[in-house]
Amino acid sequence: MVDSHNNNSPHQVVIIGGGFGGLYAAKALAKADVNVTLIDKRNFHLFQPLLYQVATGALSPADISSPLRAVLSKSKNTKVLLGEVSDIDSQGQKVMVGEDAIAYDTLIVATGAKHSYFGKDNWEEFAPGLKTVEDALAMRRRIFSAFEAAEKETDPEKRRAWLTFVIVGGGPTGVELAGAIAELANQTLKEDFRNIDTSEARILLLEGMDRILPPFAPELSQAAAISLSQLGVVVQTNTLVTNIENEVVTLKQGEGTREIASKTILWAAGVKASAMGKVLAERTGAECDRAGRVIVEPDLSIKGHSNIFVVGDLANFSHQNGKPLPGVAPVAKQEGEYVATTIQQRLKGNTLPPFNYIDRGSLAMIGQNSAVVDLGFIKLKGFFAWLFWLVIHIYFLIEFDNKLLVMIQWAWNYFTRNRGARLITGEASLGSVPIDNGSSNYPPVNIKQPLNA
Amino acid sequence: MVDSHNNNSPHQVVIIGGGFGGLYAAKALAKADVNVTLIDKRNFHLFQPLLYQVATGALSPADISSPLRAVLSKSKNTKVLLGEVSDIDSQGQKVMVGEDAIAYDTLIVATGAKHSYFGKDNWEEFAPGLKTVEDALAMRRRIFSAFEAAEKETDPEKRRAWLTFVIVGGGPTGVELAGAIAELANQTLKEDFRNIDTSEARILLLEGMDRILPPFAPELSQAAAISLSQLGVVVQTNTLVTNIENEVVTLKQGEGTREIASKTILWAAGVKASAMGKVLAERTGAECDRAGRVIVEPDLSIKGHSNIFVVGDLANFSHQNGKPLPGVAPVAKQEGEYVATTIQQRLKGNTLPPFNYIDRGSLAMIGQNSAVVDLGFIKLKGFFAWLFWLVIHIYFLIEFDNKLLVMIQWAWNYFTRNRGARLITGEASLGSVPIDNGSSNYPPVNIKQPLNA
Repeated sequence: MVDSHNNNSPHQVVIIGGGFGGLYAAKALAKADVNVTLIDKRNFHLFQPLLYQVATGALSPADISSPLRAVLSKSKNTKVLLGEVSDIDSQGQKVMVGEDAIAYDTLIVATGAKHSYFGKDNWEEFAPGLKTVEDALAMRRRIFSAFEAAEKETDPEKRRAWLTFVIVGGGPTGVELAGAIAELANQTLKEDFRNIDTSEARILLLEGMDRILPPFAPELSQAAAISLSQLGVVVQTNTLVTNIENEVVTLKQGEGTREIASKTILWAAGVKASAMGKVLAERTGAECDRAGRVIVEPDLSIKGHSNIFVVGDLANFSHQNGKPLPGVAPVAKQEGEYVATTIQQRLKGNTLPPFNYIDRGSLAMIGQNSAVVDLGFIKLKGFFAWLFWLVIHIYFLIEFDNKLLVMIQWAWNYFTRNRGARLITGEASLGSVPIDNGSSNYPPVNIKQPLNA
Repeated sequence: MVDSHNNNSPHQVVIIGGGFGGLYAAKALAKADVNVTLIDKRNFHLFQPLLYQVATGALSPADISSPLRAVLSKSKNTKVLLGEVSDIDSQGQKVMVGEDAIAYDTLIVATGAKHSYFGKDNWEEFAPGLKTVEDALAMRRRIFSAFEAAEKETDPEKRRAWLTFVIVGGGPTGVELAGAIAELANQTLKEDFRNIDTSEARILLLEGMDRILPPFAPELSQAAAISLSQLGVVVQTNTLVTNIENEVVTLKQGEGTREIASKTILWAAGVKASAMGKVLAERTGAECDRAGRVIVEPDLSIKGHSNIFVVGDLANFSHQNGKPLPGVAPVAKQEGEYVATTIQQRLKGNTLPPFNYIDRGSLAMIGQNSAVVDLGFIKLKGFFAWLFWLVIHIYFLIEFDNKLLVMIQWAWNYFTRNRGARLITGEASLGSVPIDNGSSNYPPVNIKQPLNA
């Protein structure tokens, strides 16, 4: 199939990626006099900020996902194409999806980010990250399998390793995961086991900087650390992870190093740009930063290619205060909408002022009745922050039809202290819980790869 | 770990399997003066009658599952053990779980059934069945990927094969799957695609007998067939499947044979007993029927082993009317509860009358506002049957805490004609939609394996 294009047909916009950046661009173009093709590998948009709730058994994947075709079914100018873009031809103005060439007049690249292990890709096997539905289900399987294995284990040392959960990275995802696992151990699972006391679980949250939640105001970082401690989470700041092997994390704290035996190590420490950044660099000469993000112009286009835009986690937009905007949903959403407006204005012969991100603040959930909210002019913690977090998340889910269901699921979980979605599923689960390989001797660790390099 | 046992400790009951049979036995023993160990490979009970709704994107796996530990958390005499039983030692009165021997005084075996391809195990690859959460997610992936592939396909013949869904077996599962896929094609997905008209999908329901839903009264079978036709399902009775290969089903109808090109072939035709039936036969001399089910005594025990009971789909209980009881949830549930009562009465020196199944009727959902209900003394079809189906399923889900959530999900789906859980997930989905292998020539088929052998 070749989408040929002539001057009589409407302006063709191709969007790669159906995350917040790509989807909001498509939605903003629904009524425009353009044809839109949205290409994604997956058939659904994922509300990534809630992925940690899938990983910890509170919600199901479908609760935080919306079929892309359903979201865009009323946008009659928009086609959804399920597939993976393998290459971009900026000269011929087309993208390759398998054997098919899709022609574009304007291209929006919004393929996001993936985990980064700072060059230690072998850590991934032992410390999975949280970016996709499959990641969340794998994490869920590990967490709940660890409690099952501890219940069976008679050796106290091994049992302790099964009941030790290490979360690497003290950003919002790490904080939310640590808080949720602490609640699982102390509340949800408390009555479920006969041989172990789940509240003996150790939950360690490791952060390389001097405080958790670095994007927040210092007093909120401190409030979050206190709340987490009250839930039983051990927060360790100024802590660099220097090695991860099967079941052992090596830490550097000041001059000392320390080894922690843990069967469940979760990665929330860093991301890098998806592979499309490299493709863009090769095909357009675009510049990328160290994390692989494409450095964009003030209007989010690529230098020398005014009809190619990059939005969301893949973009490095540093025109506002010299620092790149963070890889969060509101940035991606505003960027996608800005580009959609730019395209329409250009067709009318107008130009827009440069993109300007309006930061409405940051939120992080810690646990029941506890969150931190930093809106700049106002800072909330505890119950009111928690309520605010709920309202905001429900509000943004509205657009994805799942509002009512998630709200009821949360209310149910809240009042029953339950998390019903704690299934151990997937091919890897069909046998039994993970088997201890018996090895507990690890070679000395010399690698000094800082956590927040 | 060896659970040794002496005469001073309470009576040890070991239950293998946490389906309806095993779980209801465990629940009925919660207050008894016995120790119970429930062993299952999975950490959750699955409400199998609603699995077809997961396969067709209406519900999430967690909606129809309950963690076994949560269901039994208040039964303080009950331990849940996650693991697979590899062997039974009826002399030494213990079961083997990996390296561990679990001692029992009374054993209840409730490991259920799996798909049967009547000796043609190679059909499984092309025509997956529906017994586990993973089965349902794989089926969901196939169904929604087929529409995606059709949207991309330009060759009309291949597109037709992508839009042809063949369901083998006209029992309740087959009827429910066919009805749900028809509603997907005609309602849910109608506005979602740009190149295909999803309502052109062909949905074929194949049944070897002379009518669908053989356990129901003939007039209800006929009503169901009419309702399905109105939804656009082509019902073919007296139709034997003689071969299934990649993308082609061969049928025998009377003297003629026919080939149907279909990329989505779903198996709802038959089951056989799980492997534990064979283990029991070898270790206790128990007799099995052709489907591998263990033939049980009037009290559900095995001949010569009064302390080993078999319940649910694994049991062949033929003492009521000469025919084995069907493999449905109410039979398993009543059998599990009967055995629990028997154990308690025996400890008091009493014996119970033989097991007697009280058949409260059969139900099958066809589509929105349409179902069939056969209670014997009353037969319902259409809207009232549908309402009855809803009430009964909600009622039975009550015990699993998911009532409210499923009810709201259903109400939501009903009013919006939506099915939000239509995610294509799993390892196999991470690339793209299935690729046509280009081969459409099949060798002539000579195998005459009847569908309902």
